[in-house]
Amino acid sequence: MKRIGKQTICFDNPPTILETASIVGPKEADGPMAEYFDQTLSDEFWGEKTWEKAESKIIKETVNRVITKSGIPANKIDYCFAGDLLNQCISSSFGLRELNIPLFGIFGACSTFVEGMCLGSVFVEGGGANYVLCATSSHFCSAEKQFRFPLELGNQRPPTSQWTVTGSGAVILAKSGEGPYITNITPGAIVDLGIKDGNNMGAAMAPAAFNTLMAHFQDTGRKPSYYDAIITGDLGHIGKDILIDMAESKGYNIRANYNDCGVLIFDKNKQDTHAGGSGCACIGTVFSGYFFKMLKEKRYRRILLMATGALMNSTSSQQGETIPGIAHAISIEI
Amino acid sequence: MKRIGKQTICFDNPPTILETASIVGPKEADGPMAEYFDQTLSDEFWGEKTWEKAESKIIKETVNRVITKSGIPANKIDYCFAGDLLNQCISSSFGLRELNIPLFGIFGACSTFVEGMCLGSVFVEGGGANYVLCATSSHFCSAEKQFRFPLELGNQRPPTSQWTVTGSGAVILAKSGEGPYITNITPGAIVDLGIKDGNNMGAAMAPAAFNTLMAHFQDTGRKPSYYDAIITGDLGHIGKDILIDMAESKGYNIRANYNDCGVLIFDKNKQDTHAGGSGCACIGTVFSGYFFKMLKEKRYRRILLMATGALMNSTSSQQGETIPGIAHAISIEI
Repeated sequence: MKRIGKQTICFDNPPTILETASIVGPKEADGPMAEYFDQTLSDEFWGEKTWEKAESKIIKETVNRVITKSGIPANKIDYCFAGDLLNQCISSSFGLRELNIPLFGIFGACSTFVEGMCLGSVFVEGGGANYVLCATSSHFCSAEKQFRFPLELGNQRPPTSQWTVTGSGAVILAKSGEGPYITNITPGAIVDLGIKDGNNMGAAMAPAAFNTLMAHFQDTGRKPSYYDAIITGDLGHIGKDILIDMAESKGYNIRANYNDCGVLIFDKNKQDTHAGGSGCACIGTVFSGYFFKMLKEKRYRRILLMATGALMNSTSSQQGETIPGIAHAISIEI
Repeated sequence: MKRIGKQTICFDNPPTILETASIVGPKEADGPMAEYFDQTLSDEFWGEKTWEKAESKIIKETVNRVITKSGIPANKIDYCFAGDLLNQCISSSFGLRELNIPLFGIFGACSTFVEGMCLGSVFVEGGGANYVLCATSSHFCSAEKQFRFPLELGNQRPPTSQWTVTGSGAVILAKSGEGPYITNITPGAIVDLGIKDGNNMGAAMAPAAFNTLMAHFQDTGRKPSYYDAIITGDLGHIGKDILIDMAESKGYNIRANYNDCGVLIFDKNKQDTHAGGSGCACIGTVFSGYFFKMLKEKRYRRILLMATGALMNSTSSQQGETIPGIAHAISIEI
């Protein structure tokens, strides 16, 4: 691998995305992406007593499924990179505690899925691993309870609010294979332009997405038209429009081939999800479910996958802090 | 780099630990390690209004200090790996939001410091970075408030409880230099033997430390006597004794050269810290303050640095869950 430009790493022997898996909740099962997921749940508990335990079960079963689908025995997977939105990432820790694979716990809020793929691909291409597993999860109920209000209150949601995706996405990266390949990565720095509204995450994260997108184009010399699709994680309808405008202000037109997983996963008009989906599982499930299949079928040949995260918690908001954003991007090509 | 054994990566061109920095709070300033830290604070707020903001300031200033000490301009540092104990790692996110270095947020509870050095060294040795920064923090007051009880309650602390270190440790790793070198890494898997007592972290984490220690010896073919010192993060007095016994049961005698940063940082008899220090900053400050200097002075030539983490939160404990442990180890040699 070699560093190019300011913050991009280019792989000489690009790791393959060997397999993916996705499990989603009932709301996602009613959305336009439903047919692409491996499994859809009929309720938010999945037989568990709490939402947190349900979320742990979802990531656990998604990981078991990607291992089964890949045909790689679990003991051949060298390292796991996983994290989630719950305090101290307990969904991952409890969900994966019986896995017996060395674990790197990661936290990038909703950017976690691509953060894991960045780290995993460096391990694989560098010779530190033959196979790595990257996984993440989120859950509407556990996230609302933790970040906003108890669901039992029945609070009204403002139009800028997003709906945390219930689900998990997991991928296995391999040293060699038939692709799609991770050809380069552009990890991002924190950007905080002063948004304080925890019900407007799209606006808080869009500047970080813009920053990483510009760095990616400048580092690689690529233009938006290089990609069949530029996909962000969970900017939603509002953040998506902001990113389009910000890119345009710098002379990059991404209108033709850019979309956001938070826009894609729900039907805004029918599902009452306001500004769209969010959460670690938003890009995790939409990539694992939809885009991976499109790449395998060669309906897309080059995509830029960029996950965005809002690095706040309820205490920081109560203490009057703004919301720092972050975004990590990877190029995936076939 | 190459993988050896079950879970170890051995570096062909070992990254150098170029520089370290450490800032600690008033309790640590009264302890036996005080003279080795770069800065000691006279109170827990450091001019901020909340403990969380104080913790962010501590990691921010520690990172600024390690950059200054290293002489490497901040814009030459390629990536940062950071995390902490606060929900959603806000100490790191807010403390480092002006740094403008691409950030990988990590969460391994108190294992975070060595987790970051594992990841950073793979990036450096693999050719993905020339310089990386690894940092972590913890704060007694913010941790007690979040994980246990409001400090204002004045709760009695049981003898098994540990005292979260207030402080931050940071290191810069470089592609080349005069050492000390990170020669190999042994990241660990989650181990959960069923401990439920959030006031007995040492017992919860010791089995994970044992697991990683055994893997390290088996993967490398080394024996305890290979190292001048084997150092764990924050098992404290109780966890330290458990690890010694567990290692002995497998024929590894580590009594002569093993110690724990949670034992070293406080004077048990004079400081009322019960089972010893804990927190991400425990190994972070003791390594950055003391062991790095001992290595530079060649008073130690080979150490095994192993950080341990307890991957629970207050919700998981309230829901009756046990405490999963994890431990990551790195060999540092001169």
